[in-house]
Amino acid sequence: MKFNIALLAGDGIGPEVIDQAVKVSDAVAKKFGHEITWKPALTGAAAIDAVGEPYPDETHDVCAASDAVLFGAIGHPRFDNDPSAKVRPEQGLLKMRKKLGLFANVRPTFTFPSLIEKSPLKKERIEGTDLVFLRELTGGIYFGEKGRRDEGETAYDNCVYTRAEVQRLAKKGFELAMTRSKKLCCVDKANVLETSRLWRETVQAMEKDYPEVEVSYEFVDAVAMRLVQWPNSYDVLITENLFGDILTDEASVISGSMGLMPSASMGSDIALFEPIHGSYPQATGLNIANPLATVLSAAMMFETAFNLPEEGAAIRDVVNKSLAEGVVTEDLANGGKAYGTKEVGDWLAANI
Amino acid sequence: MKFNIALLAGDGIGPEVIDQAVKVSDAVAKKFGHEITWKPALTGAAAIDAVGEPYPDETHDVCAASDAVLFGAIGHPRFDNDPSAKVRPEQGLLKMRKKLGLFANVRPTFTFPSLIEKSPLKKERIEGTDLVFLRELTGGIYFGEKGRRDEGETAYDNCVYTRAEVQRLAKKGFELAMTRSKKLCCVDKANVLETSRLWRETVQAMEKDYPEVEVSYEFVDAVAMRLVQWPNSYDVLITENLFGDILTDEASVISGSMGLMPSASMGSDIALFEPIHGSYPQATGLNIANPLATVLSAAMMFETAFNLPEEGAAIRDVVNKSLAEGVVTEDLANGGKAYGTKEVGDWLAANI
Ligand SMILES: CC(C)[C@H](C(=O)O)[C@@H](O)C(=O)O
Ligand SMILES: CC(C)[C@H](C(=O)O)[C@@H](O)C(=O)O
Repeated sequence: MKFNIALLAGDGIGPEVIDQAVKVSDAVAKKFGHEITWKPALTGAAAIDAVGEPYPDETHDVCAASDAVLFGAIGHPRFDNDPSAKVRPEQGLLKMRKKLGLFANVRPTFTFPSLIEKSPLKKERIEGTDLVFLRELTGGIYFGEKGRRDEGETAYDNCVYTRAEVQRLAKKGFELAMTRSKKLCCVDKANVLETSRLWRETVQAMEKDYPEVEVSYEFVDAVAMRLVQWPNSYDVLITENLFGDILTDEASVISGSMGLMPSASMGSDIALFEPIHGSYPQATGLNIANPLATVLSAAMMFETAFNLPEEGAAIRDVVNKSLAEGVVTEDLANGGKAYGTKEVGDWLAANI
Repeated sequence: MKFNIALLAGDGIGPEVIDQAVKVSDAVAKKFGHEITWKPALTGAAAIDAVGEPYPDETHDVCAASDAVLFGAIGHPRFDNDPSAKVRPEQGLLKMRKKLGLFANVRPTFTFPSLIEKSPLKKERIEGTDLVFLRELTGGIYFGEKGRRDEGETAYDNCVYTRAEVQRLAKKGFELAMTRSKKLCCVDKANVLETSRLWRETVQAMEKDYPEVEVSYEFVDAVAMRLVQWPNSYDVLITENLFGDILTDEASVISGSMGLMPSASMGSDIALFEPIHGSYPQATGLNIANPLATVLSAAMMFETAFNLPEEGAAIRDVVNKSLAEGVVTEDLANGGKAYGTKEVGDWLAANI
């Protein structure tokens, strides 16, 4: 098969980790007889510097014309702590999600036996944790009307959801649950918010279409607790945009494998794959960033965007092999020998 | 001194734990020569059953005329999973907060050496944790306009903040930081929300009035992570209502002492004190609920509402003594002898 993949490296360590995912993807493609054409495009602070826009139209056109998007990370310290900055890398991210229609962010949290000791949680609490969040990504308070009134003294943000938006996200949740252990948790704040009541009643009405799926409803504050107490009691969780932002990040640190967690953002036409870690500006150019989350995002891309499970499994296998053999970056070296970002990438590509 | 204290026992285990706090408070009052008149009033499901309203006007009048409010817990399973229930216990809570003007919820998280093993986190991660959240409690998305349009197909919730609301909460935060280690963290989502940008710019403008306080600004998703990774890196945190709801609950489970965590909700005229745990319906009437969080809430009441630190310390001391001597309920008994709720209360009162 032939694929065009938009390549949005972004800021900070983005370009370095993306390079390794490209190498590994090319090695897999070669092995299985596919042909990948990479289409690099600007995003984030890098795009602001080049053309004054964090998600330029040309970048959007490249993405829209591709079969998938592979994304690094964006963000730069010079935009932090400046609430008044007019153009910010994050706006590009939101614009990209909206324009590409990436409504479902898929964020797995799982453990690697060799990394379990790195978790801040006790081993017996996290063992066996294997959960997936589906976060709604193009609605809610992120995209509602926002602004000021009373000469700037009052600020507002509107949270809005339609039943159709809830349905399409929940449908993905039910479908995913059917391929796993048939447990679905709907996370909301239905005791306070009207949008949450819409979420809950919509999901309740869909239960009859998936009689095998056992659905539970939990408040976001209760989930924030139980994720730390009994993460392995969850399987598939669905939630709205802002709750998902907070809870997926919370979930990402419990496994001890944060530097390895991939993610996908799916739309009806295209999907985007990216590591969940940020642009880690302090490490830029030092060849120390861990590329595995980006490499595993490429595995998700083969599996879910191209429907090529064997190719995905080949990447996962070589990642596990690198962990087992200690071909890892500093953050995973446990005082042993540390490899550079590039050297890990080379090793993975060579061992596919 | 003479005090009138409104006593809102509420639902589930509320009445049982409140009874113990009353006993202990009376014992302290006797020892220090104060006189407490308790003013019981209805709230929660109990009030819905009795008068059809979770926070009846008579209850409000009792609270408004008192020197402080001691609160148990509210909530009953028959109101759960029914997004359409017209009257719900939680509405009473929100109405009470608004009508009493309880704009600052103070939620400490600290560790007890004897309970540290109960934490889901590794000991080295939580040792020394001693942080306080100040959660804004009468504004934001909880109280903004909410509703439906498009024949119920679209739901909305408005999040609104004024500069004055942010200032009065932040002022409490700066003042608290001055009595502690002079570190303040403002938690927001200023990279996305206009209300968060108002929070951040307002707090930034107040920094000059507290030159000794070192202020940091972190995004809510980053805090959700770091609370699990390095809880002891925080001291005083200020945040808006919904973020506070999620993060304070997350924080409550890290210490392993969740059943012991008190809280205060402060207004300009009156303050309310309550355990952070819920109404725990399954345990109702079984005399097994842990009363210590409510007893420690009474200690906060003496300290902050009545400005009587010695009386507060006397309560804390006797609680520590009960822990040291193993006069504890089932949840803390570690397989040893478990005392009943009432027996723990009796022991505490007798040992003041
Ligand atoms: C950078 C920010 C706008 C973004 C979000 O809040 O969605 C990020 O935190 C994420 O989760 O991808
Ligand atoms: C019961 C609910 C309305 C309430 C809240 O969200 O404020 C509770 O979770 C709390 O934190 O006191």
